[in-house]
Formats: sequence, C-alpha cells, structure tokens
Amino acid sequence: MRQKVAILGSGGMGTACATVLEDNNHNVIIYGVDHQELEELKNGKNSKYFSDKINLPKFQTTANIDEAIQDADYILFAIPTQFIEDVFKSVISKITKPTIFINVSKGFWPDTAVSVYDEMSKLIKTNSNITGVVSLIGPSFAIDIVERHITLVDAVAYNKNIAKKVQKLFSNEWFRVYTQNDVKGAEVGAIFKNIISIASGMAEGLGYSTNTQVALVSRSINEILTYNKYVGGKKSTIFGLSGIGDLILTALSPKSRNYTFGKNFFSNTKETNNKTVEGLRSIKVIYENYIKNGRLELPIVEALYKIIYMKNNIKEVIKSLMVRPLKHE
Amino acid sequence: MRQKVAILGSGGMGTACATVLEDNNHNVIIYGVDHQELEELKNGKNSKYFSDKINLPKFQTTANIDEAIQDADYILFAIPTQFIEDVFKSVISKITKPTIFINVSKGFWPDTAVSVYDEMSKLIKTNSNITGVVSLIGPSFAIDIVERHITLVDAVAYNKNIAKKVQKLFSNEWFRVYTQNDVKGAEVGAIFKNIISIASGMAEGLGYSTNTQVALVSRSINEILTYNKYVGGKKSTIFGLSGIGDLILTALSPKSRNYTFGKNFFSNTKETNNKTVEGLRSIKVIYENYIKNGRLELPIVEALYKIIYMKNNIKEVIKSLMVRPLKHE
Repeated sequence: MRQKVAILGSGGMGTACATVLEDNNHNVIIYGVDHQELEELKNGKNSKYFSDKINLPKFQTTANIDEAIQDADYILFAIPTQFIEDVFKSVISKITKPTIFINVSKGFWPDTAVSVYDEMSKLIKTNSNITGVVSLIGPSFAIDIVERHITLVDAVAYNKNIAKKVQKLFSNEWFRVYTQNDVKGAEVGAIFKNIISIASGMAEGLGYSTNTQVALVSRSINEILTYNKYVGGKKSTIFGLSGIGDLILTALSPKSRNYTFGKNFFSNTKETNNKTVEGLRSIKVIYENYIKNGRLELPIVEALYKIIYMKNNIKEVIKSLMVRPLKHE
Repeated sequence: MRQKVAILGSGGMGTACATVLEDNNHNVIIYGVDHQELEELKNGKNSKYFSDKINLPKFQTTANIDEAIQDADYILFAIPTQFIEDVFKSVISKITKPTIFINVSKGFWPDTAVSVYDEMSKLIKTNSNITGVVSLIGPSFAIDIVERHITLVDAVAYNKNIAKKVQKLFSNEWFRVYTQNDVKGAEVGAIFKNIISIASGMAEGLGYSTNTQVALVSRSINEILTYNKYVGGKKSTIFGLSGIGDLILTALSPKSRNYTFGKNFFSNTKETNNKTVEGLRSIKVIYENYIKNGRLELPIVEALYKIIYMKNNIKEVIKSLMVRPLKHE
C-alpha cells in the first residue's frame, strides 16, 4: 500500500532513503533548510553530495516542516546528531495520527551517555500517536544507494512488528532489509564504527597501510564484544550487518568524516568542524563512563582518548601496544 | 638466539617473511628456482613482486635446496599450494636435526579435502627430527610487510610450545605475532577468505560497489560459522586475525588473485591460469563434501558453485537471493 513518508533532512542519507522509497512507489516528501538543495532535488539532483551524472528521482520537497509531516505514515529523521534535538522535540508535539518514526542517526544523544535510539524512544512517550522508533543500520554509503547498488541493512526496534513494517516499506530487488530486535547490540556497532574509523584514519595519516588498518579493525572486535556484553547486547548482532558490516565499511573507507578527522589529526589540515565527527564524543563518553573508573578494559579506545584528549605522543602509544608481552589471541 | 631459517620460495610472501627475519637478525637463506629472482634478491630487489623503490635486505640465496635446508632450525614453506607436494615430501626425508616447519600456504592439500596443515602434520610423522608444523595466518599483504607497516598475524599450531617459538622468532616492533592453537578454526578462515574474495570480485565485475561487497562479506560470516562449527573450529577464532581479519583484507582488495578471477569471470579477459586461484578448488571441495549431500546450508558457496561450475545465470542467482522471503537477521 502506498504510504506517505516525510524525510527530514536533504543531505546524502536523506536523499538516498528517499530514492529507495520513490522506487517503491511511496508518496515521499523531503524537508530541508537549504533552499538551493531543495530546488535541485525537485530536478533530480543534489550536487553537494552526488555527481551531476547521477539522476535521482524528481522529488517533492518543502522548507515547511509542518507541510512535510502532515498526514505522514512514517517520518524519517536524517539529521546530523548534533542538530537532532530541537527538530525531534518539535515534531513529537505535532503528530495527530498513528505514525512510525524512522531514525538513521547513530551514536550518543547530545550531552548524554544515552544512545540516540533510547533517547528517542523515551521522548516519544509523551505522544501516544507515535507508534515507535525504528533505526536503519548497516553498511550503506548514500552514494552507493542512489546508484542502486545492492545494499543490505537492518531495521532495528525492540518491537518486531514495527521493524517488519519498515522492512516491507524499504525492501525491493536491490535494497534488502532484515529485522533486528537487539537494539543494544546494533547501537554498539554503530558507535564503535566511528571510533575505529578515527583510529584507522590515523593509521593512514601516519603512513601505515592496509595490513595495519585491518589489524586494528580485527583487534577492535574484542573490545566491541567487551563493551557490548556490558551494555546487554547480543554477541551475534556484532557479527551481522549493523556490527562488523558497518564497521568494515566505515573504518576502511576514506569517505567517512571520522576517518578524515583521524587522517588529518597529525597534520596541519585539521578539521575545523569537529562537531560532525561523531566518534570523537563517543570516545570521551566511553572513556569517562567505562574506562576511567576501571569498569571495562578497552585498550584501543583508551589509546585514542590519550592521543586526542591528553595529547600523548602517538609513537610511544604505538610502541607500548606493540611491545606488550607476546600473547595468545 | 640467532637461528638459521631456510625460506623455500622466492615469491612475494617468501621475501616478506625473510625481511622480518633479517630485521630480527636471524641467519636467513632463500631457496628458489628462478635464477634471475635470486640474483635480484642478493641485491635487495624483487622486481616481479615489489617496486624498484623498495629496498629489501640483501639476502643470501641459493638454487640448491639441500644447501638451503642444511642445519636449518626452521624451514618456511612459501610455495603455491599446487606445487607444494613434491617439495614438501622431498624435504621431509632430508631432515637430520630437530627442525620446526613453518607454513604460509592455505586451503586444501592438492587432490584432497584435507587442509594443508593437517596433511603436513600427517606427512612429517615419518621423520621424528621434525618437531612440528606452525602456520602463519592473518591479514598480511607481502607488499605491506616489506615496507614494514605494522602487521599482526597468528602462529597456528596444536602444540603451544612450537607456536610460541615461531611467535618469538618473528615478533618485533612492527610485526606482532599471537599464538593460536585452534588449528581447525584458523584453517576455516583461510579457506573462506579466498572463496568470498571470488564473490566480491564478481560483484565488482558486475558493476556493484562497496555496499554490495561489504554486505556479501557480512552475510558470509554466518556460513563461515556454520562450516566452522561442523569441522570443529572455535567461534572466537573466526572473529580474530585469521578469520575476519584475513577475510576483510582478501575479500575487499583487488590485490588478490581470487578477487581478480571473480572480477574477470563475466568478461572476456578470464584468467588463463586458474590453478593459482585457490578459492576455486575450495568451492568445489565444499560443495561436493558438504552441500550436495545436504550436510550444510551454505547459500553463498552454493551460489558460487552454480555460477562457476553449473553455468547458472548470474542475474537469476542474484535475484533469487534478493527476493527470498524477508527475514530477521
């Protein structure tokens, strides 16, 4: 059945999700704040994110959020985590019919140690018209989605029924969605991929190559499992699309903002806007809540904290990791 | 203590292992059959595998295998699997003092469904001077090793003591070795990385991008675990350097022969020498021994078998995988 879906955010991922849903013949409208971007989207372009050669569907767009969400069956939030709070709270109060929220933001909710999903789930309780929140998580570059490369992701929610609805909404011959109700585990993957991506970028920035980056990713799995166990996620989730899948994609690709931050960390071309580097805050939150107090042993996150926040010398940090007593894996 | 190590094979991986051991100040000699290669190695070059800009140590070399192995404490086999049988058998009979064998070949022993490690372990029983076999497995491109990028691998053996000896022989500030005594699990990783690499290459050959390849790798973990459980490997090994580490490195890199085979499979530039594509034989062995008779359900390996050996239409195979009933992950 044709559904009305409001996409909040006209960036790369918003556009990509809108493309899948247009292909599935839903009634899609994109809300954004950048008028030029909205004009382009009407003509099937989004030049800030995608090359001119890519022909997107010609989207319905609006700069009026009330128009976007009116009568929507689904509202998809594709807004960077640091800007999400205001938009999210204002939308909640306006929902007057049964609506499912879809979230593609990951990491910790601003100024808290609570995941985006958990905070959203808490906030929506003030309006019983909102059926629930479903996160889309998995190895998925927006650019690959708009080019319709086969993509597999998880629809994550505690409630299996709403996850199934979102699965059905998005699935087609090139975009396949699995349901996943281990929300904790899926969030752990989404948090760590950005952290390890910073470390992997640093390795490239220091002149190291693939062996080193893959070693880092492989060894990080141990500590992802340690953290995951502590917060109550399932082991099997870490080995799925939202865990290792997303980790590989993000940590080994120069396309990620977190990777770029790490790559430039030791040079003079540092990122000016660190607010969009989600892994940075995650390192701090995890260090302060789990490592500093001795709750968990997470050597890679700890090393990153020391390098970034305590300005420890990188060469000495690496040396100390490499000359530890030889071990069994 | 300075050890004599004979490296059998003057290719990329033989040269890379020899470089680590020279750095560790051991007495290294490389045996090969290509005289030009041996001459180059004496001058710190190996132009068939590495750019001229890379300065290798100036190696001791020989075309006489008896000279290479005489008085060796360790003999490292860096010979393609399909040529290993004759060399290996002839060396066994010549060992007259306690010697540890090191193996970097993976996959199934020629014309059998037995792993290289297990067959080697069986064959050496005819000479009690041979202390045991240790496999080096992990994410390690030879080119990255000779450039001394930080590299982490497993020294794999049932016997922990000989694994520790090899760990000590190789470890230094940029090459870190972990011991691993789950031989079965480590071999499973080494077998599947080549299989999935073929599939990943095929995805590129068909025009698909990173989302698709990473989805393939992520979903393959399920069937690697299925196979691993059946042959008696430990789950944790699959999540380590010899499992996911090597899988990521090989399946996502165009540097692998298996990847190249997959990439060219649907075009006219097919590999002429399929014997070096180890994953090809592994697909056949696994299909015939585990899938055909219904013992195991391994959808990716089965799809590859049908595409490669039964000439099924690739588009229909993909479509059948994508339109399966929607599932929980």
